[in-house]
Amino acid sequence: MADEIKVFASASVTNVGPGFDIMGFALEEPGDEVTVRFSKIPGIRITNIKGDGENLPLEPEKNTAGASLISLAKYLGISEGIELEINKKMRIGSGLGSSAASAVASVFALNELSGRKLTKNQLLLHALEGEKITSGGTPHADNISACLFGGFVIVRSLSPVDVINIPTPENLYCVVITPFIEVSTAEARKVMPKEIPLETAVTQWGNIAGLVAGLMKGDFEIIKRSLKDVVSEPVRSKLIPGYEGIKNAALDAGAFGANISGSGPSVFALCESIETAKIIGEAMQTVVNSLNIESALYISKINQNGPRVI
Amino acid sequence: MADEIKVFASASVTNVGPGFDIMGFALEEPGDEVTVRFSKIPGIRITNIKGDGENLPLEPEKNTAGASLISLAKYLGISEGIELEINKKMRIGSGLGSSAASAVASVFALNELSGRKLTKNQLLLHALEGEKITSGGTPHADNISACLFGGFVIVRSLSPVDVINIPTPENLYCVVITPFIEVSTAEARKVMPKEIPLETAVTQWGNIAGLVAGLMKGDFEIIKRSLKDVVSEPVRSKLIPGYEGIKNAALDAGAFGANISGSGPSVFALCESIETAKIIGEAMQTVVNSLNIESALYISKINQNGPRVI
Repeated sequence: MADEIKVFASASVTNVGPGFDIMGFALEEPGDEVTVRFSKIPGIRITNIKGDGENLPLEPEKNTAGASLISLAKYLGISEGIELEINKKMRIGSGLGSSAASAVASVFALNELSGRKLTKNQLLLHALEGEKITSGGTPHADNISACLFGGFVIVRSLSPVDVINIPTPENLYCVVITPFIEVSTAEARKVMPKEIPLETAVTQWGNIAGLVAGLMKGDFEIIKRSLKDVVSEPVRSKLIPGYEGIKNAALDAGAFGANISGSGPSVFALCESIETAKIIGEAMQTVVNSLNIESALYISKINQNGPRVI
Repeated sequence: MADEIKVFASASVTNVGPGFDIMGFALEEPGDEVTVRFSKIPGIRITNIKGDGENLPLEPEKNTAGASLISLAKYLGISEGIELEINKKMRIGSGLGSSAASAVASVFALNELSGRKLTKNQLLLHALEGEKITSGGTPHADNISACLFGGFVIVRSLSPVDVINIPTPENLYCVVITPFIEVSTAEARKVMPKEIPLETAVTQWGNIAGLVAGLMKGDFEIIKRSLKDVVSEPVRSKLIPGYEGIKNAALDAGAFGANISGSGPSVFALCESIETAKIIGEAMQTVVNSLNIESALYISKINQNGPRVI
């Protein structure tokens, strides 16, 4: 058995329009890379954090990836020392599940290194231990589930965890733009209303029902009609400068729909070909550029497989 | 071309647990029968209402089936006289879409008689004209859509009308019990909260997303976990005497789930075989009997086709 393994786990888009807090999907890029190796030095140590992670804690119990590893190592009864290196290849706090990617990559890596004893459902619970750190209590499983399983997922329930995979249509492309601004997750939570009108809720669950049906039928027209969010977008979009312009640019360029990824500031759009995706990406970035905000642009198919050994 | 046609259109279950106001499915029985015939006497006349319809208005513009026919006849430019006979073979106000069944049967019949010029999507709009009478303004399209298209439907939007058919799993059986009590639709609307906590709404849309996925995958375990309603059942169940006992009897007897059909008082349960359906039906009816309430019991597969000429 190898002593060292390197794993890539990808960014994920969550909320997905009407699926606030219950839906996510995995991208092919960007993503984080981690290296996990057994060591003669006892305990779990984070030996290096590269990329956009210079402010992240090196103490494993305070680090999402570290805490996930601690949980899994304990469960597997691993007595050897473990070293973790994290290469964060995406921006932290961009609404693309950066902490989830590092946590998933870490538990996936340790499971591979230990003879692949656990299923993804079991790994999910350990990766969630990491999310508890960033969420301050109640973790959300949407980024982790999408990142770990790949494809589109519904997180129907967190207690007990119930993740439902749904098939992804062929030829579905995602464009993501990450403006280099900060949107605090806490602020994004705070702007959400505590109560919503029943009528608004009915519209939202009609749309999520339609979106799931559209995805499973592979019917882009249904996806287009259903990818609408009357609950979070109206309030959260105000935290993203130029949001309306970015979204409209995507729609005008041929996107089925566009919305905020997670709690932002990343904005995603879905479409049906790589050519359209490139045009959409350019159109979105032109709007962001015009605001004198730097950004990163990603064009990717849906990642169907979750993390991979590299 | 024939001068007369007889059509059966079935009862439908709406709301379907988490799908409040957006989901429905069609039963094989009970249902209404209508006869539509061309006549030398000008105008549209309802010549007979049999069955549980003695209090229904004979004036076509005040009758849901009559109003639907008026709308369709006008659209088709039919100048001949039309006679309509309605045989209501299910209880009015039972939560099974009785008025929708008569309206759908009527427009379906006239379309057949006139050379099948319109699609079901077009017929839907005319059947909705009838529902405007019972709803007092804003009609709901869930019963009509389920009854007209058959199978499970999502009514994603009413304006414009957007009905999405979803495939029904093989071997899905529905048990419906109709206690002979009255639950006013207006009262059932009134008890619904105007606002709901966001957290509750998220739970509900996680469940509807799961239910759609479960139905489309034909995965009974997912259906079972998802067929939960945290919005309408808690308040509407209080309008149905013995509801908790009826539901628990169904679940104990092997149902995936049970809930109120429409605004009640009918209660439906889903299960995976005719044998289990019979046991569930007996168990539900035993509870209703113990309350000295008469009832009707229906066991049926999902009606996949909508109305039929008989």
